[in-house]
Amino acid sequence: MQIGLGFWASKTLLSAIELELFTELAKHPENLDAIQGRLGLHERSARDFLDALVALGMLERKDGTYQNTPSTDLFLDKAKPSYIGGILEMANHRLYPFWGGLTEALRTGKPQNETRHGQEPIFETLYADPARLREFLSAMTGVSHGGNMKIARAFPWADYSTFADIGTAQGDLVVQIAEANPHLTGIGFDLPVVEPIFEEYAARSSAADRIRFEGGDFFERGLPKADVLLMGHILHDWGLTDKRMLITKAYDALPEGGALIVYEALIDDDRRANAFGLLMSLNMLIETDSGFDYTGADCQGWMADAGFRESRVEHLIGPDSMVIGIK
Amino acid sequence: MQIGLGFWASKTLLSAIELELFTELAKHPENLDAIQGRLGLHERSARDFLDALVALGMLERKDGTYQNTPSTDLFLDKAKPSYIGGILEMANHRLYPFWGGLTEALRTGKPQNETRHGQEPIFETLYADPARLREFLSAMTGVSHGGNMKIARAFPWADYSTFADIGTAQGDLVVQIAEANPHLTGIGFDLPVVEPIFEEYAARSSAADRIRFEGGDFFERGLPKADVLLMGHILHDWGLTDKRMLITKAYDALPEGGALIVYEALIDDDRRANAFGLLMSLNMLIETDSGFDYTGADCQGWMADAGFRESRVEHLIGPDSMVIGIK
Repeated sequence: MQIGLGFWASKTLLSAIELELFTELAKHPENLDAIQGRLGLHERSARDFLDALVALGMLERKDGTYQNTPSTDLFLDKAKPSYIGGILEMANHRLYPFWGGLTEALRTGKPQNETRHGQEPIFETLYADPARLREFLSAMTGVSHGGNMKIARAFPWADYSTFADIGTAQGDLVVQIAEANPHLTGIGFDLPVVEPIFEEYAARSSAADRIRFEGGDFFERGLPKADVLLMGHILHDWGLTDKRMLITKAYDALPEGGALIVYEALIDDDRRANAFGLLMSLNMLIETDSGFDYTGADCQGWMADAGFRESRVEHLIGPDSMVIGIK
Repeated sequence: MQIGLGFWASKTLLSAIELELFTELAKHPENLDAIQGRLGLHERSARDFLDALVALGMLERKDGTYQNTPSTDLFLDKAKPSYIGGILEMANHRLYPFWGGLTEALRTGKPQNETRHGQEPIFETLYADPARLREFLSAMTGVSHGGNMKIARAFPWADYSTFADIGTAQGDLVVQIAEANPHLTGIGFDLPVVEPIFEEYAARSSAADRIRFEGGDFFERGLPKADVLLMGHILHDWGLTDKRMLITKAYDALPEGGALIVYEALIDDDRRANAFGLLMSLNMLIETDSGFDYTGADCQGWMADAGFRESRVEHLIGPDSMVIGIK
């Protein structure tokens, strides 16, 4: 029952983010009447909504005054750079309704998003609309930020001087790595339409002078040359042929001794522990024509086939792990 | 992230129930290819879907053969009388899409289900369509079955000889009480349209000869007279005026010393622990014009106002508790 009706808690949190409740409460704690007025909530619903968020651990309530928890204040206040709610904003207005078509997706193998009615493939669709593009790129930062910070510290960066992030979106991974490693210069590589959004994000970084954007389509050309190439939540968007093609292009672009870091919510090799990784693969079913998530062993096999001489898997945080391949 | 994206796990389980996966596997365990064929799953999706259910604890996998867990075999196999998936079937095709309108419900206080487009109130709508009525009544059994079994054993039935369940639906509470207490005779009271569905369910009971249905509308007439009256997940459907009216009608129908048992996913008195009860109240926002869930203390206050001389709250199972009022 808790799992089957779990969408109640899920949608309650997503609506709180849509209503910017955590952003409002980050300014100052409020009582029921004040929140009801500021968010435009109906008197029938406001108290149950807020107390449900208390019971879910998303708010605290003391003497009738509601305030953020330390976590929701840090991660769900839009005014803070630590905001990771972008993925949940997108989940609220895109993924929640699209997942309503899961049974059809399971039967047909076909995506259930905007592409369902014969439009362009998903990235063309998302990237053609500036508002949707911005939301999508921000969502990708939200889902990656924790892992990005870990990669910036856990990888032996002292051995390298240049890196390029393939499919960089807003560029959060580039920013985190460059800020934590002052000897590095980095490239964010993505479709040209992403450039202004990357530049806006990167300009706020203390490492902005060691970061640059390179526009291009990895189906049309080779990858930028650098000592280390990174692909975070990229390979899972594509079918097996394209996954192998991208790993081979990375191999070709790296020097001897260079490294490819592939990072995802990697499924455990026995496919029975990382529920989030398996569900993310179903999300690729909902969202893409042929994408799927995979295990560390799967990826190590593809790297070996492409010529990488060694590889290893390291856990990052939560459901995320990285596969490091050495040329 | 786990809560905000929790609808992935939720919808995965709901689709498994829709596809009758657990009912199929209860016949015998199967490997991937056999399940894919029997359920009509696409080759792209089948393995991720099944392994996600393994990771969620809903299936077991041994040497490539998938089987139900003891719990999913008992509770989610439609062929067993212990099946409680009705509520999840209804959640899958009604509540999941309706909860997509939560933000609008929070702002307007208006339901987001079939009644949203100016149709009849929800019970008239549900009860006018035989298929929907049957699904709804079965859903109510699913959400109540565990609590029903507990009430049949935890209440001091030896002190009473007759009982009536108000808003009985399929009559599972009547059946459980009568089977566990051979000295009792019981009435299931609901709208006349419910009668054939009640009779079908009650006929399978070993206590069928001590159970009968009484048709009526509790807005139009008094309640059946009995030593004990029960209202399980009934009061939360209605606004405060109707709640008080129903409690008063129960008081009027009881003898001196008689008992009213009100049972729900009662919210804890401090409104910060029982997340399910608070979310159930938001479900009443989605489903009804003015219904809401409430605390044990709320209900004890209404009982005292109606004349009950004493009352107490007792926990049943999971999120459910009962309030017992003595006339």
